[in-house]
Amino acid sequence: MFIFLIFTIILPQKSFTSLLPTRYPTLIEVQGRPTPLEYDTLRKNFFLEQKNRYLGADLTLSPQEERVNDIIMRLKRQELTYGFSNPGNFSGAVHIFQSFERIDNSSLFKILRKMPKGGVLHAHDTALLSTAKVIEFTYRENLWILGDLDENSDKLPKFLFALSKPQAENGLEWQSVADLRLAKGSEVFDKELHDILSLYSSDSSIENRDINYVWRRFKSIFSVLGGIVCYDEVWKAYFYQALQEFLDDGVQYLEFRGLLPAVYAINGTIYSPEQVVELYVEVLEKFKREHPTFINSKFIFAPPRAATDEQFDKDLGILNELRLKFGNFVVGFDLVGQEDAGRPLKDFAHKLLRLPQDIKFFFHAGETNWNGMATDENLVDAILIGTKRIGHGFAITKNPKILEAIKTENICIEVNPVSNQVLKLVDDFRNHPAALLFADNYPVVISSDDPSFWRTTPLSHDFYIAFIGISSAHSDLRFLEKLVKNSIEYSSLSANERQNAESKWRAEWEKWLKWVIDNYET
Amino acid sequence: MFIFLIFTIILPQKSFTSLLPTRYPTLIEVQGRPTPLEYDTLRKNFFLEQKNRYLGADLTLSPQEERVNDIIMRLKRQELTYGFSNPGNFSGAVHIFQSFERIDNSSLFKILRKMPKGGVLHAHDTALLSTAKVIEFTYRENLWILGDLDENSDKLPKFLFALSKPQAENGLEWQSVADLRLAKGSEVFDKELHDILSLYSSDSSIENRDINYVWRRFKSIFSVLGGIVCYDEVWKAYFYQALQEFLDDGVQYLEFRGLLPAVYAINGTIYSPEQVVELYVEVLEKFKREHPTFINSKFIFAPPRAATDEQFDKDLGILNELRLKFGNFVVGFDLVGQEDAGRPLKDFAHKLLRLPQDIKFFFHAGETNWNGMATDENLVDAILIGTKRIGHGFAITKNPKILEAIKTENICIEVNPVSNQVLKLVDDFRNHPAALLFADNYPVVISSDDPSFWRTTPLSHDFYIAFIGISSAHSDLRFLEKLVKNSIEYSSLSANERQNAESKWRAEWEKWLKWVIDNYET
Repeated sequence: MFIFLIFTIILPQKSFTSLLPTRYPTLIEVQGRPTPLEYDTLRKNFFLEQKNRYLGADLTLSPQEERVNDIIMRLKRQELTYGFSNPGNFSGAVHIFQSFERIDNSSLFKILRKMPKGGVLHAHDTALLSTAKVIEFTYRENLWILGDLDENSDKLPKFLFALSKPQAENGLEWQSVADLRLAKGSEVFDKELHDILSLYSSDSSIENRDINYVWRRFKSIFSVLGGIVCYDEVWKAYFYQALQEFLDDGVQYLEFRGLLPAVYAINGTIYSPEQVVELYVEVLEKFKREHPTFINSKFIFAPPRAATDEQFDKDLGILNELRLKFGNFVVGFDLVGQEDAGRPLKDFAHKLLRLPQDIKFFFHAGETNWNGMATDENLVDAILIGTKRIGHGFAITKNPKILEAIKTENICIEVNPVSNQVLKLVDDFRNHPAALLFADNYPVVISSDDPSFWRTTPLSHDFYIAFIGISSAHSDLRFLEKLVKNSIEYSSLSANERQNAESKWRAEWEKWLKWVIDNYET
Repeated sequence: MFIFLIFTIILPQKSFTSLLPTRYPTLIEVQGRPTPLEYDTLRKNFFLEQKNRYLGADLTLSPQEERVNDIIMRLKRQELTYGFSNPGNFSGAVHIFQSFERIDNSSLFKILRKMPKGGVLHAHDTALLSTAKVIEFTYRENLWILGDLDENSDKLPKFLFALSKPQAENGLEWQSVADLRLAKGSEVFDKELHDILSLYSSDSSIENRDINYVWRRFKSIFSVLGGIVCYDEVWKAYFYQALQEFLDDGVQYLEFRGLLPAVYAINGTIYSPEQVVELYVEVLEKFKREHPTFINSKFIFAPPRAATDEQFDKDLGILNELRLKFGNFVVGFDLVGQEDAGRPLKDFAHKLLRLPQDIKFFFHAGETNWNGMATDENLVDAILIGTKRIGHGFAITKNPKILEAIKTENICIEVNPVSNQVLKLVDDFRNHPAALLFADNYPVVISSDDPSFWRTTPLSHDFYIAFIGISSAHSDLRFLEKLVKNSIEYSSLSANERQNAESKWRAEWEKWLKWVIDNYET
């Protein structure tokens, strides 16, 4: 006997209801098979109820938003219809490095680029700014290089700004970058440097290499960059220009993670972590003065997870000092580095739990394909230690108890689609686990992680991929708007600051709606 | 304030509770962060509760099974530890075509090969038998070939058994296979034929081709095979030898889908669908007489989903006749072919709903990467029309309502890991959506779909991949045993037949336990 059951049970609004599926539709009981007529009704209801659980289903579009939605959904349908027949040329299915040209020509992408997207809540200090801009810094005077520029070489080059030639290392002489550029020709030099500073390089085999290879290349970028961007003058310019690029891409708020590395002055003086934060604050204040539409930026201190106990204790000491001095800018703590290769959270749990309650946690966790190993089990520790958000959480959909806890605790998942592909967790975006999170209105935001390293825009590419490659074909402007709102709601902005943020975003949003209608309504 | 909540709410045993998460652990309320001691307890409980939801967690191992479990888990940990450091050489992460040699050398695989695995519930009529055996059939006399043997050619060869040379087609002459083999040399001929009949061919680029290309090649195998295996004498031998290969691989029951194609006699007479079923039954009875450990085989009539309305009506007519005449062998109905390219279930829904209640459905549904398109929405229709099982259901984890319905209705998902990879739905097995189904004890079975076409064993490779590539590192012998039990529970065997099946399986299982202990206990 076939019984099909759907339910209307409205449970009292106790806190535990959040563990349960979010909606209980109308009870219908059909004995045996449904009749064709019953089937038609059941079918309609099923899809309706499904859509009512989507991320953004709780939002109502204004008449103007409805018009923009019609435009966006027409373009989305066009791209999906094309992709359905040509999956090998569908940007939601293939490697992003194969799609740049196609994406640049997409009207939908152009609209998303202009869209005010709220905040980026997951990005890393020295992976914010486009490689082109970083290369511009190497045109500054007093820059030296040690080693060669071959991206496949084991010996990566080191850079240093200094008034005179630094001392040779292991018999190797430093050369002036200006001289070497002249000798090689600036086009060749810049191309070689670009290949070292980006995973989107001349070595196209990278799309098919394994995760450990890609992570090695990825980490090498940070290390080569160090000497360039840690020079105090560049450090400040880097942050300022990064904020500019983010704002230009429709990002009005940036909550980023950083190591607070050894920034240095031209005379070799090293800045303390506290002084590095002071540089950030100084630049940020200037940027805000000069860009009234920008909301703010905040900072999460995130030293490497591959730390010894001594290093970790030192990091906690730094954290404590920063919190007292920069409580409104330094908002919390995380650990960074390849999870599979670093130490699991549980190693640090007891110490973390003894920290003052006002220190918030924003842990990377579950950035892995493994299941039942130390790395995906970081998700459990992140939850138990009391993380406010989770970075990546790629492994989250492998365990129902974790999914339930995320909902109960209202922990936001920072989803970074392009990063997950480039760093080899997922091949076809349509297999990204966020599809389930989107379908059931989990607390999520879209972010970009290290856009500098894979030639993407600060946020637009990730939004575009999430929209056409991961969300349901039925997900519409409400989905996008909800992602924006989540990026403010789950940020570390205070209640007051959030109000201000909302109104700054709203002003840009209204302008954007008008622009879309003016330019794309037929 | 941080509040961590876990609950003890035992809901009354109404049917709707199956929609809810299966377990509600003890209520603990922690104000603020847990203390390190509380954290340790919470952590232990969390993992315990997580493991209690795993597929197989309800089974209790006998003392002998415990010993086998220790062996298996030692080997599993070894492989995972190696894979964790060498993901590029981990069979659970890379393309199966890269892994054959490594898998053949795996002790764990050797143990799984010998394991009595119950039944295969998802496999297709002419994709059961190994290609080597199919090539043996081409050594039979009276076989003719039209066209060439190039796997990349648009013009695929046709085969036909006939007493004299068949009539030329479009000016092209048939040649004797014996003569052509002699001319080319049998090694070359057989290699070329093998390349046409298998996706594991000389064309290694297939691993990186898009889904439409692979499906084209995949469908071409069926079409080339037709002339060889549809010859009545070969047809019978094919089925007999397939049952033999399955039994040798530890599969004691086979519930397969078939088209009932035009089987022909040497004089050109064509068998009716009814007569084709008679051939199956005749061979099956012989095989059962000669193999007392074999349980049985049953058949699901599965014509192409790319049917016109007229063809579909004709298929339903055939189904009706078969059901009256072979009710204990022909157990139900399905539609086959690439879902993205064929007609959606909803096109046929009204007609299907009017069929007699005793005709069971076993629909392919959601064998796709798309989300919110006609193909993944087949899942909803399969459920509403009342399917007993779902073939593939790859898209199932993209929608919480579908996940809930699967549990409520107790619909079994037939998971085919290797098929899903070769046919381009998933790249890294660790991203297979079945991970969630395994973690929350959904009704699932592991099956092999078309093992002949990708050089895998009838079931062992899929079991191995499910175990090391998809299930949690903690999933153990109970997971494997549950998959076996599910394959009997969700089969079309009657209650009586199931009892008999269980005891035939149990006898082999006991032998296997002893064999594992004798050979692998240290």
